[in-house]
Amino acid sequence: MFVVLVYDVNQKRVNKVLKKCRQYLNWVQNSVLQGEISEANLTKLKMELERIINKEEDSIILYNLRTTKYFFPEILGLQKGGEGNIL
Amino acid sequence: MFVVLVYDVNQKRVNKVLKKCRQYLNWVQNSVLQGEISEANLTKLKMELERIINKEEDSIILYNLRTTKYFFPEILGLQKGGEGNIL
Repeated sequence: MFVVLVYDVNQKRVNKVLKKCRQYLNWVQNSVLQGEISEANLTKLKMELERIINKEEDSIILYNLRTTKYFFPEILGLQKGGEGNIL
Repeated sequence: MFVVLVYDVNQKRVNKVLKKCRQYLNWVQNSVLQGEISEANLTKLKMELERIINKEEDSIILYNLRTTKYFFPEILGLQKGGEGNIL
């Protein structure tokens, strides 16, 4: 499946969260990562993130797409992530 | 259609971009908005944002979904946007 992950976490935990996300997904923009990920790895990523974040302060949204058939990303301005990071 | 918008813009233009986006979409998290939007309004929003941003510095990604049938958002931690902002 294809996942877009956006995080809004306390500065203290940004590096840890970003590092963890990068193990599974591609960075595309400040606080945004995306990529193909298996169901098993997605479960692993969620468990690992839940161990890092403070649930009273931090928020992470995972937009989980079963298919990218109806999915049309578009960029205004700069493409910050490397080539190929946007579909 | 349903759109998730993420912005990464220079601090100087954040307020203008956020204000413009809020006219069409719901705020869900720092730098992230989403919502149902008509094709005509999406075109309008893009044109208006292109007038605000600096294309050498800023980046806005629009994830445009023709259908939310295969779309499963999930939150870890806090839900920052109001109730009903996440599908």
